[in-house]
Amino acid sequence: MTALLPDKTVASIRWLAAPTSWSWLEQANSNLINLLIDHAHCERKAAGSAVQMMFRYLCEPGLAEVLSPIAQEELEHFDQVLALVKKRGRYLEPLQSPEYGAKLAKSIRKGEPNRMLDSFLVAGLIEARSHERMALLAEHCEDQELRCLYSSLLTSEARHFGQYWLLCEQRWDRALVTARLEELAIIEVEALTGSLQNPSDVRMHSVGVEPIS
Amino acid sequence: MTALLPDKTVASIRWLAAPTSWSWLEQANSNLINLLIDHAHCERKAAGSAVQMMFRYLCEPGLAEVLSPIAQEELEHFDQVLALVKKRGRYLEPLQSPEYGAKLAKSIRKGEPNRMLDSFLVAGLIEARSHERMALLAEHCEDQELRCLYSSLLTSEARHFGQYWLLCEQRWDRALVTARLEELAIIEVEALTGSLQNPSDVRMHSVGVEPIS
Repeated sequence: MTALLPDKTVASIRWLAAPTSWSWLEQANSNLINLLIDHAHCERKAAGSAVQMMFRYLCEPGLAEVLSPIAQEELEHFDQVLALVKKRGRYLEPLQSPEYGAKLAKSIRKGEPNRMLDSFLVAGLIEARSHERMALLAEHCEDQELRCLYSSLLTSEARHFGQYWLLCEQRWDRALVTARLEELAIIEVEALTGSLQNPSDVRMHSVGVEPIS
Repeated sequence: MTALLPDKTVASIRWLAAPTSWSWLEQANSNLINLLIDHAHCERKAAGSAVQMMFRYLCEPGLAEVLSPIAQEELEHFDQVLALVKKRGRYLEPLQSPEYGAKLAKSIRKGEPNRMLDSFLVAGLIEARSHERMALLAEHCEDQELRCLYSSLLTSEARHFGQYWLLCEQRWDRALVTARLEELAIIEVEALTGSLQNPSDVRMHSVGVEPIS
């Protein structure tokens, strides 16, 4: 499995083309309830995406066995986050999307087997970014209950990246997978530029990365 | 919760408009591997359906809290059934569908709130039929390992019916829910008439019910 350990300064996750900036963390701390509601949506979308891939590639041996447990775990996380959202007097309100997922979805090539490879890598990159930002929040979130939440969730996100990576490695040459991951990692950083109507608002995948070095 | 206990003869499930016939059970016993593969597909479809409803009605309070755990449980069952399918040297091959789910989906009215009510009731009826047939298999399946499997799964199916029923009762008048459930229960029996290319083939929801009395 790929090492996904955050640096002591700003997160430095292998495979992500640029680390999250402190400005994102500051915005997150200034609007934690919106971040939490958005996080619940992210968990359900990750589950939906795993279920969708499982349905699309039903006959692919060794796939459902990985994707079904990932979907279950994402739904468990959704339950945990939703419970906290409700405890704080809110619910699953629709929030303006930073279009991160939509931009990444557009980068998935259409014909097979490229579509499968890209789908796994995009899902993995979203997990990697979530892991990076949750690691930042686990350390620097101003709310103790949320620090505990993010600490408890972030290892799963890293594991899920590793599982998507492994699904690729089992099916394609490692050099090919790495080359495509590097291309998609650039697109992932570019996808983190979606502006929100309220510039002080924040999402788990809203704008806030250092320049690509 | 509605009582969903099978009779000692053929299953007699409250709300189902007609019980499964012995001829279905005989066909099931003559083609257990196809039944098992189809069962795996049923579990994943049930999970997909719960996720789909959760996504459609995100802002509806008290819904995601019920549907997310149902989806998780259906995926756990999927894992269990898939493990048995693989142990017997097969995988998630596509099987000709008896069109049961498709026929039931057509009975769901389009406008809200009717669409929500019908979606819950149809999901509940599918769980009730699955419960009825699994109860028959738990007792009369000729394969001991599968008898154990069905015994372990059938109480969840009954519980899921109860949960879908409760979602309706919390939102609509009981008389209205009962009246619509009775209509849909007739459609459910009619949906169990889909013919398969090979008449000796069998599915969890293939033809085989007594006449509606």
